[in-house]
Amino acid sequence: MTGGGQPFPPRPGPPWPGSLRPALLGPGREFDRIRAILSDIPNPGPDVRVGPGDDGAVFSDGLAISTDLSIEGVHFRLDWISPEEAGYRAAAAGLSDLAAMAAEPIALFASVAAPGDGTSAETVMQGVKRLAARSGIPLLGGDLTRSPGPLVVDVVSVGRSLDPLLRSGAGEGDELWVTGTLGGAAAAVALWSAGRPVPAEARRAFAEPSPRVREAIWLRRAGATAGIDLSDGIAGDAAHLAAASGVSIVLIAEALPVHPALSGADFPPGVDALGLALHGGEDYELLVAAPKGVLVSRVEEFSSLFDLPLTRVGRADGGAGVFLASGAQGDARRLLREGFDQFGAGGPG
Amino acid sequence: MTGGGQPFPPRPGPPWPGSLRPALLGPGREFDRIRAILSDIPNPGPDVRVGPGDDGAVFSDGLAISTDLSIEGVHFRLDWISPEEAGYRAAAAGLSDLAAMAAEPIALFASVAAPGDGTSAETVMQGVKRLAARSGIPLLGGDLTRSPGPLVVDVVSVGRSLDPLLRSGAGEGDELWVTGTLGGAAAAVALWSAGRPVPAEARRAFAEPSPRVREAIWLRRAGATAGIDLSDGIAGDAAHLAAASGVSIVLIAEALPVHPALSGADFPPGVDALGLALHGGEDYELLVAAPKGVLVSRVEEFSSLFDLPLTRVGRADGGAGVFLASGAQGDARRLLREGFDQFGAGGPG
Repeated sequence: MTGGGQPFPPRPGPPWPGSLRPALLGPGREFDRIRAILSDIPNPGPDVRVGPGDDGAVFSDGLAISTDLSIEGVHFRLDWISPEEAGYRAAAAGLSDLAAMAAEPIALFASVAAPGDGTSAETVMQGVKRLAARSGIPLLGGDLTRSPGPLVVDVVSVGRSLDPLLRSGAGEGDELWVTGTLGGAAAAVALWSAGRPVPAEARRAFAEPSPRVREAIWLRRAGATAGIDLSDGIAGDAAHLAAASGVSIVLIAEALPVHPALSGADFPPGVDALGLALHGGEDYELLVAAPKGVLVSRVEEFSSLFDLPLTRVGRADGGAGVFLASGAQGDARRLLREGFDQFGAGGPG
Repeated sequence: MTGGGQPFPPRPGPPWPGSLRPALLGPGREFDRIRAILSDIPNPGPDVRVGPGDDGAVFSDGLAISTDLSIEGVHFRLDWISPEEAGYRAAAAGLSDLAAMAAEPIALFASVAAPGDGTSAETVMQGVKRLAARSGIPLLGGDLTRSPGPLVVDVVSVGRSLDPLLRSGAGEGDELWVTGTLGGAAAAVALWSAGRPVPAEARRAFAEPSPRVREAIWLRRAGATAGIDLSDGIAGDAAHLAAASGVSIVLIAEALPVHPALSGADFPPGVDALGLALHGGEDYELLVAAPKGVLVSRVEEFSSLFDLPLTRVGRADGGAGVFLASGAQGDARRLLREGFDQFGAGGPG
């Protein structure tokens, strides 16, 4: 356990305004399905502070739980990364859901289905354990079974957040900030898919993402009002944050912190750095909202503390949807293509 | 939330003797893999009361968490049951892990990977929601993704147990008791696999198992010292309980409560009722140990309360392993074949 091992607090905190309706989601077929599934979910009652539709659930005592499923052929391919890396990556994606809520991780659980005699299941678990050890939390259990098809890893992340960062907290006039750089993982996927050389930094962005756990807690304390982790691309994830908060979001094209591996990479036709930074999934960076002026004076402190850039990439306005503005042109166009659709035609498979 | 919605208690209970080493497991290739995975797991620290290797993890404040993975072609086939039933069944199996620890369920999470356009993912979630509603707990979240192969359902069960029933609590001289009847689900699988008619009761045992949540809490309060849920067949699951408790277990052949659907069913050659009751998986009944004489006077109370038999099936002795005794013969033979091996040649796939 991290954080000195405090027990859960004896009393629920104050009610969390509006949290007992499922969070509103942005557009996309996957999210239409989730909306349909959530449509008849009963009110879970007063012990649940954050219900379905956010990055995870949060109970009134601060317990935060999230699950994250990784499937070979959908989220990764074993000619791109090793089974050990698939486990590491799945666990990192799981912890990233806790980071999105500014929760302190407590433990991981991992369920693995592996083809053949199960040797790769052990290797996958080694990767999960490596991420758990690096994060200072235990792997406390899971399930192990045979798969007649793809390798499957489902990671359950358990944490605690007495003051969770939600998707729904952004207000008009807030600034939007992003940790790290964008598009690195998507660049690796685009280059692998085209059979072109993958720079080591892009490969590492895909194979070993860093969940921004400590960064999220810092940002929450510094005044961030809303947050989401970038699993589906900033365009799509900003749409969830905008929908949950009841605002529109304007992203500034020139401000997006493009991953350094994207400059000079030999991309196939139709692929460019801005598109990867906007629509590329699985960076596992954070997008947070904060009131105007709150974070700007603390960028250097953040960068030196975490050895990571913190970049203002846009703002929240009235209305709905996500728009891309260009400083040179001054106008904003609506972003129609909103990230990776799990049930769409695209994706690594 | 169930149970009046008490928050987690403010202070950890007394330390749980010996619980911080992973539970010992019985024989089998799946369990060899789990042993290898657990071999270098670091001590999770004082906030964890029950670590890896039991039916789930239990934190010092009573929080209990378990994950359970169901894969099409391994655990079920869609020419046997519907996607909705696959969801119901996976959720029931998940809650059964909580029952095995005598934990009060709080919430479910479900991750689903579905082939095609995702329609079946919604249907699977309907089944999960049906079991959740029947159990009086909320579905609080999950994950939804495309599968390039089988339907995959991973269920995370969250509960609370201040006095968990563990696999490791049985002592020499304890009696072994079983809830309900055995072999019904395995009979359905054997008959489906042979292309023979499946009695409705056997089909229901497979498609809609009942997690013994309330029964487990009652049995713990009545004095049960150890327990496990029967997911892999009583022979194999008794071996886990025996290994974790450091005892041997003798099962009495004539005492095993065979599912009524097994009498008169048209089994293929080599399949018989005793074999199904011993080695058939996925009954999701409970096997508990209790000191001699503690439960015998309360069998009628149990049966009338839960409309379910409670049957004494054997005893714990010194030594190790699981033995089958026959009242007629008086001698006991070691059970070598210990249930369903996930990575073995058998199974529904």
